[in-house]
Amino acid sequence: MIEIEAIGTIHTPYSAKDFCPSQPVEREEGEARLVVDPRFEAGLADLAGFRYIYAIFHLHAQDQEPTMQVKPPWAKGVSVGLFASRSPNRPARIGISVVRLKKIEANVLTTGLIDVYDGTPLLDIKPYIKELDAKADANYGWIEGLDGHQHLLDHIRGIPHAHHEHKHHHHHHDD
Amino acid sequence: MIEIEAIGTIHTPYSAKDFCPSQPVEREEGEARLVVDPRFEAGLADLAGFRYIYAIFHLHAQDQEPTMQVKPPWAKGVSVGLFASRSPNRPARIGISVVRLKKIEANVLTTGLIDVYDGTPLLDIKPYIKELDAKADANYGWIEGLDGHQHLLDHIRGIPHAHHEHKHHHHHHDD
Repeated sequence: MIEIEAIGTIHTPYSAKDFCPSQPVEREEGEARLVVDPRFEAGLADLAGFRYIYAIFHLHAQDQEPTMQVKPPWAKGVSVGLFASRSPNRPARIGISVVRLKKIEANVLTTGLIDVYDGTPLLDIKPYIKELDAKADANYGWIEGLDGHQHLLDHIRGIPHAHHEHKHHHHHHDD
Repeated sequence: MIEIEAIGTIHTPYSAKDFCPSQPVEREEGEARLVVDPRFEAGLADLAGFRYIYAIFHLHAQDQEPTMQVKPPWAKGVSVGLFASRSPNRPARIGISVVRLKKIEANVLTTGLIDVYDGTPLLDIKPYIKELDAKADANYGWIEGLDGHQHLLDHIRGIPHAHHEHKHHHHHHDD
């Protein structure tokens, strides 16, 4: 086992007792706050110029043994391998999100919404550097094979769209 | 402290005694192998359709206390905040790389080269999903303010280019 030190805490509108959206949600609404331990505040220098950052966090609310097959809540019952999913229930319980950086005030970062429970331990922050991290030729893997995958991609992109075929559900968190 | 379980090991051409390139290197040459513990092999199902994956790893060779200001080896002596850098010497010692997935055979993934030492513990694999992870409007933060930053971006992109101004150096690893 490897020991990892948290550098702070993520605050979101999602209490652990309430539900938390799964990955493909409209992300334009709402904010998260990343509160960094004051010991590490000086390490935030020069970060504010980046439009996006990686938030890396510990999926602390997961208390079940991971299973090697999962059914992502938005994927219409399709079962896929755990590492082909972004399910939060994985051996290392590390989550990552690419998130818009809005402002930094002392040791507190305000970002776009992150789909994790309030109080999630923050493990690291890294700059998202376009040439390293933005792969224009990336694809969608097995998601492309789903019926109605264009609808799911609209969700992921946060584009408003009609729901003709199915109702909204409350999902459990899926990083 | 949070305990994290490794899921496997990353094999690269870089022995820990030798040097290891820093982030902005030509990445088209060479390969890495991600050897996943056989316990987790079934979790690799459905992953092969993704062009890129995130490799998440433990920067195990770092044995110094992190400092809150760092000088990235390719950044011409500029000093920046630790969290505005991809320096490997950070509190949580977690590294992430977006890497091209070439093939999966049983429990072994062959990928583009990852700039980590051979034997680095692999913590997680996640699919890189274009709509979530590829931000076309991402930027370069403080890197844009460096003299000759276009040259650095050529390095990052892996575009062949002339070196008029400076010699190659052997760097220490910088995730």
